[in-house]
Amino acid sequence: MREVAVLGVGQTKFGELWDRSFREIGIEAGLQALVDAKLSSGDLGALYLGNMASGSLIDQEHIAPLILDYAGLGKRHLPAVRVEGGGASGALALHQGYLAVASGLYDYVVVGGAEKLTDVPDVTASDIVSSTADHEWEVVFGATLPALWALVARRHMYQYGTTREQLARVPIHDHAMAAKNPNAHYRNKLTLEQVLDAGPVAEPLGMLDCAPLSDGAAAVVLGPLDTAREHTDRPIRIAASQVACDTMALQHRADFTTLESTVVAARRAFAQARRAPSDVRVAEIHDAYSISALVSLEDLGFVEKGRAGPDFASGKFGPYGALVVNPSGGLKAQGRPFGAVGVAQVVEIVRQLRGEAKERQVSGATLGLAHDVGGTGATSVVHLLEAVS
Amino acid sequence: MREVAVLGVGQTKFGELWDRSFREIGIEAGLQALVDAKLSSGDLGALYLGNMASGSLIDQEHIAPLILDYAGLGKRHLPAVRVEGGGASGALALHQGYLAVASGLYDYVVVGGAEKLTDVPDVTASDIVSSTADHEWEVVFGATLPALWALVARRHMYQYGTTREQLARVPIHDHAMAAKNPNAHYRNKLTLEQVLDAGPVAEPLGMLDCAPLSDGAAAVVLGPLDTAREHTDRPIRIAASQVACDTMALQHRADFTTLESTVVAARRAFAQARRAPSDVRVAEIHDAYSISALVSLEDLGFVEKGRAGPDFASGKFGPYGALVVNPSGGLKAQGRPFGAVGVAQVVEIVRQLRGEAKERQVSGATLGLAHDVGGTGATSVVHLLEAVS
Repeated sequence: MREVAVLGVGQTKFGELWDRSFREIGIEAGLQALVDAKLSSGDLGALYLGNMASGSLIDQEHIAPLILDYAGLGKRHLPAVRVEGGGASGALALHQGYLAVASGLYDYVVVGGAEKLTDVPDVTASDIVSSTADHEWEVVFGATLPALWALVARRHMYQYGTTREQLARVPIHDHAMAAKNPNAHYRNKLTLEQVLDAGPVAEPLGMLDCAPLSDGAAAVVLGPLDTAREHTDRPIRIAASQVACDTMALQHRADFTTLESTVVAARRAFAQARRAPSDVRVAEIHDAYSISALVSLEDLGFVEKGRAGPDFASGKFGPYGALVVNPSGGLKAQGRPFGAVGVAQVVEIVRQLRGEAKERQVSGATLGLAHDVGGTGATSVVHLLEAVS
Repeated sequence: MREVAVLGVGQTKFGELWDRSFREIGIEAGLQALVDAKLSSGDLGALYLGNMASGSLIDQEHIAPLILDYAGLGKRHLPAVRVEGGGASGALALHQGYLAVASGLYDYVVVGGAEKLTDVPDVTASDIVSSTADHEWEVVFGATLPALWALVARRHMYQYGTTREQLARVPIHDHAMAAKNPNAHYRNKLTLEQVLDAGPVAEPLGMLDCAPLSDGAAAVVLGPLDTAREHTDRPIRIAASQVACDTMALQHRADFTTLESTVVAARRAFAQARRAPSDVRVAEIHDAYSISALVSLEDLGFVEKGRAGPDFASGKFGPYGALVVNPSGGLKAQGRPFGAVGVAQVVEIVRQLRGEAKERQVSGATLGLAHDVGGTGATSVVHLLEAVS
């Protein structure tokens, strides 16, 4: 299999982008990534787009050629393919882009993720979010995605003694990180009181334990590692790209405090890269709800099962920790434009590994991890990225 | 790049399957394909699913792990990825499955296409169909997908002298073919009078010029060609798998009687396979509307531009022609469950190349072509399949 590198990255601001359309933000991110990769559109072989719900949100399916078209590439007749896996759509698109280059059929591909969530008419955003859970077994009975994650939280508290205050440390951490990220949806710092006093969404999760709905787009350009030096002084190798799935409904799992899809995807990724969790210096992990961040840290192998609550509260994953988590601010504070999330995570890791993350730079980062989840863990995607010396 | 073969195929009946759910039909097709490939689910590396609009149709995004789950594979944590490109979703999923095996990361993958269209509540099917055209430039002004194809028909009639009667020969041909296909949605034969007298949809296209909305699923199992003999006596090699895109909106094309995406995808496919259109003995082509079949035959290189009307009417593509078109009955008569179409086309070609097509067997077929289109040609996918002697 041919080795694959990230050659360029691009990202729009995340937030309420009411003056900009889906196609505009998709194109901005893609062009940034192309310029960053020192490529022109004539060099590209294919486009992959991660998008969760454009059909329900903006009545537009078939969205990959639309972005290709409005990027001015329609006349070049490139293949353009949309990939969807709920909140993991962006990372799944990256996995497909990775396979496309690794196979040898394509040399340079652009992978974008984009979603427009804040100013769409006639939809209840929570219905769209919940369409990533099991409709027939969960959603028709009234379960929403935050309600399902709240069940995970309650069980984690019961089983491992995790406290409400420990959960609250996740958004506090994320907002502190995002304060240094100019692309972030929220850059205000939070206090413990604010998080605990926020209105309930699905107890124990309150308003500030849940990532926002955001508009935004992100893109990366991939190419063969062996010619990467022609495009960048700091090629970033994709050391592993792995996907794993699980049952859709929580009730069908033996233990729903563990995301088995994350456990398996991480195990496969560390095996592919021949590295261990302790080698990772910086990670962007799934924190759509406070509890997701805690179980993700455990299931990725960064802490012992049940220990994430106290470890997180101790500041172990802060800017001076051995492993820095979510320097971008994560889904909670950088923002959550579904299909863009998995790509944006990789954009952040690439910037960290290149030493281009400015105020939020993690020192000495050579191996980074990105972890994207769909639904309550029916899909998990893990990428390991490595600076090439 | 590793050579890839089709090892097994499966398909449900197409039609109004009101007593069966999305997940049931998806699983039936997949299990048939696995049994046909003499594989057990334990051998599989990944699942790809082509599906157009499950979010809008059944409030369920994130549908690939759902199928994996209900096929009893959720606990094996395989990667399951949904691919969407309007009506071309199935063929795009196959392209991704092809790359997955070609890359070497996966050995055996199952590619399924499934759609539930006839008994879904609260949606106007025509809105869903039209979500594959350009929403901002076409659909908001009242254009539907049949209306856009009617523009193509009018222009083709004006420019090349194609007649209403020649258009009508397409559904007559398709229904005659489908009479021999037990999986077909419609097996009744049509007369010229019936087609011409049918109520108008978007003139010149009438009710019987438009493919129906169907429920249905199809699946294929792919694997490395070099071990294909362990699974089947008649391995079918994927000689080419190519995708090309074009502008979303018809109005942005220089000439809308030509599907440039089909021209380019076919050119790339014949180059990849080192074959020519004249080598193809059997083809499943896009005939969602009578006019689509005619322009497709031209743009795939099977007839000179503008000649498809008279050539089709002469019976050149019938069961005794040098090139037999749509032996399954095509989208018009076998049926049109969007995401399943591109996979079902390949199922039919494989059965023809294996000599397993019974009453509708095309004699001496060693090279076959499958052609799937999204929207009005913003996406085209061409597969060439070859019997390995």
